[in-house]
Amino acid sequence: MAEEKSAENVVFVGIKPVMNYVLAVITQFNEGAGEVILKARGKAISRAVDAAEIVRKRFLQGVSVSNITIGTEEVQGERGATNVSTIEIALKR
Amino acid sequence: MAEEKSAENVVFVGIKPVMNYVLAVITQFNEGAGEVILKARGKAISRAVDAAEIVRKRFLQGVSVSNITIGTEEVQGERGATNVSTIEIALKR
Repeated sequence: MAEEKSAENVVFVGIKPVMNYVLAVITQFNEGAGEVILKARGKAISRAVDAAEIVRKRFLQGVSVSNITIGTEEVQGERGATNVSTIEIALKR
Repeated sequence: MAEEKSAENVVFVGIKPVMNYVLAVITQFNEGAGEVILKARGKAISRAVDAAEIVRKRFLQGVSVSNITIGTEEVQGERGATNVSTIEIALKR
């Protein structure tokens, strides 16, 4: 069950309004998660940072950033493979 | 002179094409810098991550990410103060 638990604690940040992702993170913490990981690719990276900052500054002051990693993924597009940057922001309470 | 040296090793990422910032980082390293810090705010955050990834994957394989921090800055706009997220990505060779 360890894997399932870990998967539940990930919030994928996309093109929705930032408050959707803020709410998703807060919900995870309120359900007892000790760590929540925000993941995003490409232009959504800025939104993931916004979400992390809003969570820890405005809603859950006890939450802090425990780790940030960046990387590159290959994405298959219409005109072949292109690279897209990724970010993972781990929030811990 | 320590302060000056430190300031020279910062690359501010804005709205120009990402390769401008990649080139700026490579130039700093070629001039002898041991560490270069990419800084960005708001939507330019994604571009800063792109620049870091392109530098270390495509051009300078010996360079790695030594630290990433995120934060929030208050910006004075036409309709009062708003918050903007920031990122600092430290690259080390």
